[in-house]
Amino acid sequence: MQIPIVRNILEANDRIAAQLKKSFAEKGILVLNLMSSPGAGKTSLLERTLRDLAPEFRMAVIEGDLQTDNDARRVAATGAQAVQVNTDGGCHLDGSMIMEALNSLDLSGLDILFVENVGNLVCPAEFSVGEDHNIALLSVAEGDDKPEKYPLLFHISSVMLLNKTDLLPYVDFSLEKASAHATALNKEIAVFPVSCRTGEGLDAWYGWLRAARAAKKPAA
Amino acid sequence: MQIPIVRNILEANDRIAAQLKKSFAEKGILVLNLMSSPGAGKTSLLERTLRDLAPEFRMAVIEGDLQTDNDARRVAATGAQAVQVNTDGGCHLDGSMIMEALNSLDLSGLDILFVENVGNLVCPAEFSVGEDHNIALLSVAEGDDKPEKYPLLFHISSVMLLNKTDLLPYVDFSLEKASAHATALNKEIAVFPVSCRTGEGLDAWYGWLRAARAAKKPAA
Repeated sequence: MQIPIVRNILEANDRIAAQLKKSFAEKGILVLNLMSSPGAGKTSLLERTLRDLAPEFRMAVIEGDLQTDNDARRVAATGAQAVQVNTDGGCHLDGSMIMEALNSLDLSGLDILFVENVGNLVCPAEFSVGEDHNIALLSVAEGDDKPEKYPLLFHISSVMLLNKTDLLPYVDFSLEKASAHATALNKEIAVFPVSCRTGEGLDAWYGWLRAARAAKKPAA
Repeated sequence: MQIPIVRNILEANDRIAAQLKKSFAEKGILVLNLMSSPGAGKTSLLERTLRDLAPEFRMAVIEGDLQTDNDARRVAATGAQAVQVNTDGGCHLDGSMIMEALNSLDLSGLDILFVENVGNLVCPAEFSVGEDHNIALLSVAEGDDKPEKYPLLFHISSVMLLNKTDLLPYVDFSLEKASAHATALNKEIAVFPVSCRTGEGLDAWYGWLRAARAAKKPAA
């Protein structure tokens, strides 16, 4: 059920996202839109990834939050470029916010741009930010039924990371069930169980990142 | 930053919510709007509460989800009345959805109506459903910074339940920090650490419910 007003907003965003995508393609930057519930571990994943892959790639992050610059400060502490966008109550990032944030980033020679979206399994999935891939992150503490209950995000994502696997002994979560629900929505989705706390499983995610980076044409 | 279109939608909802509130007051029903991130444990809290307080109160639940009737089935298994609302992608419940759901409920002699909102810390907080109280639920697996990062929900809530305290030994979460962040937004908020898995701490929540029920005028 999409009322006309909402459809106009989405169409306007699609136009801006298409411009962004063209511009990122010209610059040869791989852009990944990272989405999850609040507290699933998006920033922790980025802290690990930015530190571990710093010798290989030049990376930057656009951080989206309703309030605070906590996450941009955490990311900047890794040495990566970070810019914070505060949505001031808004439930997702959109193309125009990314357009503005790019003014605060040095894009020259950048290999990968991560967009850490607002913590929300619903709205961010409706608004493209010019990404090459959507990345869904789900904490095992949230339950294995989430792909079934919030289908759009998992339908459009290239990757589902199942984070906090160190908590598996203490929660009711089946990696198999979560994977089956996600794969039913999207046959192509790559599933990586990880623990950003212990580092377990991150190598597979890094392998995917390297392949995605290699598949992206460099700037002409 | 509220664009005019959004303001009109909110004002239209406020009018419907006021009608609902008046109607609930006439019937003497206590209405609680339960909100959290996906997978924080709203349905588990309701399963416990409905079973434990069944001898004292007549209770019903309106379940909001994008897809599936999983939660309504879980709630109905306790013996309580339950009706499922599917928002078909929508990120929150609103007054008109509640109005329609009421057609499927027997309200006679009802003491408490729980509305389990869509799992989302942002949008549901902007749309009243005619509730007497908003109830925020936060899982300790999500991190103690969530009230600071998603302030509106904690600002408008009468209660913050900190769920999954059984996971405290395995996560970095300070009950004191989370309480301090929430209290800074809202001096009156009552904070109850609970584990819906073990039952720990639920008695304090039940005490609050009994007091809220007693404070609600019965139908004339």
